[in-house]
Amino acid sequence: MIFEKTGHGGDIYAQRVRCDFSANINPLGTPESVRRAVIDSAMQIHNYPDPCCRRLRNKIAEYESVLPSQVMCGNGAAELIFSYCMATGPKTALELAPTFSEYSAALENVGCRVVRHTLKQENDFALTDAFPGVLQSERPDVVFLCNPNNPTGRLIEPALLEKICLVCAENNTRVFLDECFLDLSDDGGAGSMKRYLTQYPNLFILKAFTKNYGMAGLRLGYCLCSDDALLERMSRTTQVWNVSVPAQAAGIAALGERAFLARAGAVIAAERERLGTDLAGLGFRVCRSDANFILFFSDREIERPLAAQGILVRNCANYHGLEHGWYRIAVKQKPENDLLISALRKIIGG
Amino acid sequence: MIFEKTGHGGDIYAQRVRCDFSANINPLGTPESVRRAVIDSAMQIHNYPDPCCRRLRNKIAEYESVLPSQVMCGNGAAELIFSYCMATGPKTALELAPTFSEYSAALENVGCRVVRHTLKQENDFALTDAFPGVLQSERPDVVFLCNPNNPTGRLIEPALLEKICLVCAENNTRVFLDECFLDLSDDGGAGSMKRYLTQYPNLFILKAFTKNYGMAGLRLGYCLCSDDALLERMSRTTQVWNVSVPAQAAGIAALGERAFLARAGAVIAAERERLGTDLAGLGFRVCRSDANFILFFSDREIERPLAAQGILVRNCANYHGLEHGWYRIAVKQKPENDLLISALRKIIGG
Repeated sequence: MIFEKTGHGGDIYAQRVRCDFSANINPLGTPESVRRAVIDSAMQIHNYPDPCCRRLRNKIAEYESVLPSQVMCGNGAAELIFSYCMATGPKTALELAPTFSEYSAALENVGCRVVRHTLKQENDFALTDAFPGVLQSERPDVVFLCNPNNPTGRLIEPALLEKICLVCAENNTRVFLDECFLDLSDDGGAGSMKRYLTQYPNLFILKAFTKNYGMAGLRLGYCLCSDDALLERMSRTTQVWNVSVPAQAAGIAALGERAFLARAGAVIAAERERLGTDLAGLGFRVCRSDANFILFFSDREIERPLAAQGILVRNCANYHGLEHGWYRIAVKQKPENDLLISALRKIIGG
Repeated sequence: MIFEKTGHGGDIYAQRVRCDFSANINPLGTPESVRRAVIDSAMQIHNYPDPCCRRLRNKIAEYESVLPSQVMCGNGAAELIFSYCMATGPKTALELAPTFSEYSAALENVGCRVVRHTLKQENDFALTDAFPGVLQSERPDVVFLCNPNNPTGRLIEPALLEKICLVCAENNTRVFLDECFLDLSDDGGAGSMKRYLTQYPNLFILKAFTKNYGMAGLRLGYCLCSDDALLERMSRTTQVWNVSVPAQAAGIAALGERAFLARAGAVIAAERERLGTDLAGLGFRVCRSDANFILFFSDREIERPLAAQGILVRNCANYHGLEHGWYRIAVKQKPENDLLISALRKIIGG
């Protein structure tokens, strides 16, 4: 077969899988109300979806305390990355290394030159105060940031993020800020830059239902932006009916699940601490994480022996800025995390 | 709100609807096995979809008697129209008028100049033997054809279609052939040009589950093409996980429903005849149709009075090549068709 789209986590279809740590989904999985919405939507699939996602967008606007006109939905957050790049057509972009690889896939699709700012391992890959200076000297058309960053799990300091937005506004640099993992991070969503939407029309915030509500298979993401003309241009880069009936129904149901998100946050905080300690105890170099996943380094090859036991982890060797030996795992619930640690112990011990 | 994506049929969300004739869906609706697949998929939505649609593509290849490498799936056929245009980047395109408006939306998105060949009302909008000559003189980068054409419902004569493919191969013109309505037409799918896939690498065939199996809300389409490099380029214009878990599951179920398609074909043939006679009897100018929908002309405004009764029809005034007064309706089952005719009778009589 020709167009093999692989290299990401979550590809459970090419092998037998008992436990998938390679995709960063909410450890509690999918809320019952979301599954119920999908089941109920089976009676509506003969209808075209609402091309404007009217009900869903109104609900999101209410949830996020923004205007409905500042919300646009997509077939997963990933589609919005592609349509953003098509609509803005940047010539130069600055992104972090390592970071989520779909940014550069979408940028390269429109012929954009991508410059990478490599995060330092000795800082546990934190973004530092040096970055505004890099923006000043590079003056790219757009900067891609991910908060917390994937695959490092590091949050950006609020004061630094504000500084970045200010510098970008002065330099006419667009800010693409991916907050898809923010709600499940230690920040809990409180530090969202959405409060600056009106002040900075060059600010574009990406959010997803995928991770928060275990809906990766449904494809539903959205963005927040006050630049009406940009959203209008983006809508012309995609077909009319891009968000399915089940996804719209599930999204509306998910927005009622604040308590589910809070429960997940508590599980993540406790289990990440435990997992990190256990991984360090096994001799791995564990990167500090503020998110629902952990990046760590292993001298020993662990991917294949884990896969042989049906356990998937994300091999991060194909990220810019990471060499072979780095792995990312999702923080899951205790029984699954115990399974992983005991499997690793056997591999290391053997 | 800013990015209102309207102007198509099937928008049942902006108004109260009792019966929607504006979207050309299978009159029998959705097979039970397809609804069941969606319901069952609710237990899998926490997983990312298979980015390569491996199982589904293999099933489609078997169903269509082509190679799996010649099949690519999309988030509805509409997504494939957009990614085809992005991947081929044509400078000039020839399309029919009237025809489906997403072709030119996708072409204009990549800055392509669109030339239109207007079909004549006196021929009931049939494509004639003059067309290969138009291709010879225009020599466009790509020609968009729809068989049967939407909104006219006319099939292209098989010998003419073969002549077109030959001329295009000689002139280095790509052929984008939309067969989304072919299976529900009088042709029944037998005249698919897929038998020329290997002979003509410049031939690209679009197919959809949307209409055949009442799956418009799920978003699932596919294309058939032997140009590996083109499919590879297309895959790079979209995100990795573009086809959802419910859509992939439903597609696999739908391919087992050949008898359902045959039953629908019988209903369409009988009801189209009856509807056509009734419409003509009410004084409308009815265009000959070979498909599961009918184009007709009315001197009287009928859209609003029908909508007032909860009945949607497709006002075709926004199609290139059609003036105000043309309407398209789907052929549905007898009770619904009777409802439409009796509503029209009241409007005409009143």
